[in-house]
Amino acid sequence: MTQIPQDLAEARKSIDNLDAALIHLLAERFKITQHVGEIKARLNMPPADPEREAEQVRRFRALAEKSQLDPEFAEKVLTFIVTEVVRHHQQIPRGDKDGAEATPTDA
Amino acid sequence: MTQIPQDLAEARKSIDNLDAALIHLLAERFKITQHVGEIKARLNMPPADPEREAEQVRRFRALAEKSQLDPEFAEKVLTFIVTEVVRHHQQIPRGDKDGAEATPTDA
Repeated sequence: MTQIPQDLAEARKSIDNLDAALIHLLAERFKITQHVGEIKARLNMPPADPEREAEQVRRFRALAEKSQLDPEFAEKVLTFIVTEVVRHHQQIPRGDKDGAEATPTDA
Repeated sequence: MTQIPQDLAEARKSIDNLDAALIHLLAERFKITQHVGEIKARLNMPPADPEREAEQVRRFRALAEKSQLDPEFAEKVLTFIVTEVVRHHQQIPRGDKDGAEATPTDA
């Protein structure tokens, strides 16, 4: 095992703290999108909402710019999470029998 | 524009709040990994640290399980972020002239 300089060790501890917070936020976010998927399936609402998604991307990029985070990266992260949410929601049964292949989701 | 049910509108507000927190955490995390990249470049430390990365994956998965978040998803998110960190750190000049192609990073 290599010797870790003090400043590197401290930075890593901060990264670990932020990662723990990140995981807990993601867990909470998934609980809510799961709930949204259920609402949409129950009401037979269209699975995707392009208007909402476009608004989310705009908002994500604006927040990233304010925080000095690369907006391209922020958008990629959002897209990645949304894709996972869709994948997870594909299992939720819909209210209408004909809509079995639809994807209730809300990123 | 479609009429949004009240419970869906509220869930979306919560998602937006969590997303703002997520962006700010990611911005802070990037600042720290940037600093780590600089330390490693200065000390000519090896760019990647497989031991540290394996430990991060283990930790991420354990935290996800505790939070009832899919550990596979958690690992994918970490891998995605790490890849971006590496990409961002490829621009940091290293202390040794021969190491120009090396990638100082610390996920």
